[in-house]
Amino acid sequence: MKQIPTPSIERLSVLSSTLSRLAAEGVEKTSSADLEKRTGFSACTIRKDISALGGAGTDTAGYRSKQLQAVIEKELGLETPRNCCIVGLGRMGGSILSYGGFADSGIVIKAGFDSSINVIELLRSPVPLYPAYEITEKVRELGIELAILTVPAEAALKSAQRLVDGGVRGILNFAPINLVLGSDVVVRNLFVVDELRVISALLAGR
Amino acid sequence: MKQIPTPSIERLSVLSSTLSRLAAEGVEKTSSADLEKRTGFSACTIRKDISALGGAGTDTAGYRSKQLQAVIEKELGLETPRNCCIVGLGRMGGSILSYGGFADSGIVIKAGFDSSINVIELLRSPVPLYPAYEITEKVRELGIELAILTVPAEAALKSAQRLVDGGVRGILNFAPINLVLGSDVVVRNLFVVDELRVISALLAGR
Repeated sequence: MKQIPTPSIERLSVLSSTLSRLAAEGVEKTSSADLEKRTGFSACTIRKDISALGGAGTDTAGYRSKQLQAVIEKELGLETPRNCCIVGLGRMGGSILSYGGFADSGIVIKAGFDSSINVIELLRSPVPLYPAYEITEKVRELGIELAILTVPAEAALKSAQRLVDGGVRGILNFAPINLVLGSDVVVRNLFVVDELRVISALLAGR
Repeated sequence: MKQIPTPSIERLSVLSSTLSRLAAEGVEKTSSADLEKRTGFSACTIRKDISALGGAGTDTAGYRSKQLQAVIEKELGLETPRNCCIVGLGRMGGSILSYGGFADSGIVIKAGFDSSINVIELLRSPVPLYPAYEITEKVRELGIELAILTVPAEAALKSAQRLVDGGVRGILNFAPINLVLGSDVVVRNLFVVDELRVISALLAGR
């Protein structure tokens, strides 16, 4: 597989989701100009990202949505599904647990964990739920590679360590703390406050 | 104000939050190497981002956490607080509404909106809640510039339009749809599935 720079991976990932929505809407053909409108990336950047993959053709006659999506997913290594779990089943974790948008994404939610036995017993869930102290064991047993961390800040590092001990290599972190883990673990943070501050700074710069 | 490139704004915003947590922990001095560990950005990139701002000194003797935070916030235009609202008070929106981490962030949550009167009447909230049809009016009245959109995909565009009509210029969008709005509106998307796919692609590239 080619070595693709991270910003390009981020854009291509968004592009492939956008193409998937287009396909669902029955839109068979698209263009870099159309994708610019839908994603906010410039048409020029989109063309560069796509042509760097090879095999997706050029924009002269537009792109075929489904075909382009398939090429991107192949090149990004997204064809093989990966198992994922959710740690922390409060309102945020619970809303992700019941979210229906994971179908066809290559992400398979396999389990949920919470430190409260009450939560585990009462929450309606499409996947099995386990107590937090079983994270390492269950993650290993179920072959889980990815985790969504929606625990309070003070529980984040311990939960992350349990996940990594079980074999998790990628964490999407909602807990407002910068997780310092081994360099073999990919961590991406989704901090609502930070994102709002970025928007605020972008507005101030105008 | 200097024109700062968007990726640099994104990193500086994360850095200022990290510095704020350091200050809260009583850590008075830090370094680019320490910040690399805490944020995942390379020490070299951090030094470049900071020195481009001017006025923050260099890393030769380390940075003073609080002072550096102040310089970043001034340069990013984050000193002036901005009013924000949450549209869609399901589990995701509700969890953000009750989140205590907005203090000292420069982001002031002023109101919540939902299309269900039931939700508005029953939800405990630290800020006033209004029905969705009042969005434009209330946003204008309260001087709200930012919004967090946590509605279902099919309601996203209509909600966004109401917000923009009331004067909102920045939207943090959780609804799994690419919002196409005017070029004077800053939209940032937080799509959980896309973020997991980015992690998956980064793991595949290793």
